[in-house]
Amino acid sequence: MKESEIIRVFMSEIKDKILGDDAGYIKFNEDWILITTDMLVWRTDIPDFMKPEDAGRKVVTMNVSDIAAMGGKPKAFFFSLGVPKDIDENLLRRIAKGIREGSRRYKIRVISGDTNDVSEIVIDGGALGIGKRLLLRSNAKPGDVVCVTGELGRPLLALILWSKGEDIPREVLEKARDPQARVEEGKILSEVANAAIDISDGLSKELWEISMASSVKIVIEEDALPIHPTVKELSHNPTEIALSSGEEFELIFTISPENIPDIPFDFTVIGKVEKGRGVYIKGKGEMPILGWEHFVGFGNAKR
Amino acid sequence: MKESEIIRVFMSEIKDKILGDDAGYIKFNEDWILITTDMLVWRTDIPDFMKPEDAGRKVVTMNVSDIAAMGGKPKAFFFSLGVPKDIDENLLRRIAKGIREGSRRYKIRVISGDTNDVSEIVIDGGALGIGKRLLLRSNAKPGDVVCVTGELGRPLLALILWSKGEDIPREVLEKARDPQARVEEGKILSEVANAAIDISDGLSKELWEISMASSVKIVIEEDALPIHPTVKELSHNPTEIALSSGEEFELIFTISPENIPDIPFDFTVIGKVEKGRGVYIKGKGEMPILGWEHFVGFGNAKR
Repeated sequence: MKESEIIRVFMSEIKDKILGDDAGYIKFNEDWILITTDMLVWRTDIPDFMKPEDAGRKVVTMNVSDIAAMGGKPKAFFFSLGVPKDIDENLLRRIAKGIREGSRRYKIRVISGDTNDVSEIVIDGGALGIGKRLLLRSNAKPGDVVCVTGELGRPLLALILWSKGEDIPREVLEKARDPQARVEEGKILSEVANAAIDISDGLSKELWEISMASSVKIVIEEDALPIHPTVKELSHNPTEIALSSGEEFELIFTISPENIPDIPFDFTVIGKVEKGRGVYIKGKGEMPILGWEHFVGFGNAKR
Repeated sequence: MKESEIIRVFMSEIKDKILGDDAGYIKFNEDWILITTDMLVWRTDIPDFMKPEDAGRKVVTMNVSDIAAMGGKPKAFFFSLGVPKDIDENLLRRIAKGIREGSRRYKIRVISGDTNDVSEIVIDGGALGIGKRLLLRSNAKPGDVVCVTGELGRPLLALILWSKGEDIPREVLEKARDPQARVEEGKILSEVANAAIDISDGLSKELWEISMASSVKIVIEEDALPIHPTVKELSHNPTEIALSSGEEFELIFTISPENIPDIPFDFTVIGKVEKGRGVYIKGKGEMPILGWEHFVGFGNAKR
């Protein structure tokens, strides 16, 4: 079964409706408690240009990013580790060191840990956050503009170059090895934006998630996409790379145009929200859902 | 490496002191938010007398039990699932059904889920709880009595009989297949007890955890141990079984004797807390740390 099919089967039995945003949430007094978990599977998620410290940091980042995408403030990290009995102690130390570095970067504490004997290395990380106002995928409104932080394409470009055995330029490797969660941006957006999602699986897939959850049409301007200069330079199809590149951990958000002056950080307007359904590239028709597996036999290819 | 060694190495790098209770916790306004995760590994944790629904229920119970042991009220369940791509859809449905049953039993919602491609089935469950006053392992005080809920020994007896290919009596199988977390007891104890821990790994190991964390001596009366009648009947060494049997999810707690009249549920006083160090059986010397691997090549034998 594909991951999407596994999720569908599982959720149809569990029957709790709340599943399906970047993080789960429950109301507590005046606030929202946010919880997310995201499992890193060494074999499929860690190409060998990443160091064990990068993997540890990444498992913190990918969970913190889910809290940021909901407009929450991350408060704590927790994990369950599954490793083979014969794991190398030095490898274990280096993963732990990465987790420590990640938790310090985001100023959160590691509050719970568990280890288990599993035949391959899995690190199931989790983050706890607090939010005042949530940014849901389902809250995009016709009239909003669609925006994204940062520049896109480097994580996928790194995988493509790596899979071909080619050199990876330093600025590309940096982003691929050590992406950062947009925590400050998420907190600010929680006050002014309508919907948000982080780019875990690629811009095109995330835009479709917003479109479907909010029952709106999204129209993107291809020329507006903030594609990283090195991606433009080295790739024959930079737009496709930008639409497909996952684990960017940039935030996509939709916001009413009059609230844009309230945003103090850099971002790019890439399109708009309209009445209707689907995601379109202006002048080119419906946007396909592109993923990494389109380019390399790695990473999300597993899904 | 053994699990204890893996934990030691990992924690020495992470350097956050709070790790090491049943659940992690952070203060939030006037309350404590409690988080725990506990990974179930199918190959080592699910003997074939358990059904997939039992496994789903158990992963909820073992996490909720950690919240109960801290004196918290469980609020939500979340999970990351790792399964091989060729997993049988019916098996998946039955695990999900067990998770649904477990979350209904404890009146909590399933708020977040994630699935991944892992070469063997792992279900990393987690629970979120809220507490007013925490029951820490480190808070046992000389003068306290040591108490335990329920009757001990059945989960291990079931494994022993199963490993020998013998019939498992119904009342033994029931507890082994479907243990229950002591949620109501934990909430009441949060107001009156000093320390608590749930029995995941066996009474002897948990008593040592309290003794070490609280820097106290614990003296147990062997004759007072609430050993289940069928365990007494079928085993040559019922005390050893009771000290070793894990996944009971009963609560061990220490409490000042004057608070005992405030407890409205059944429990057994099994010993007392004194100044000093270590865990002793009265008249017999130091209590060994016994585990399942002592009896059967299964379960905690992995550690």
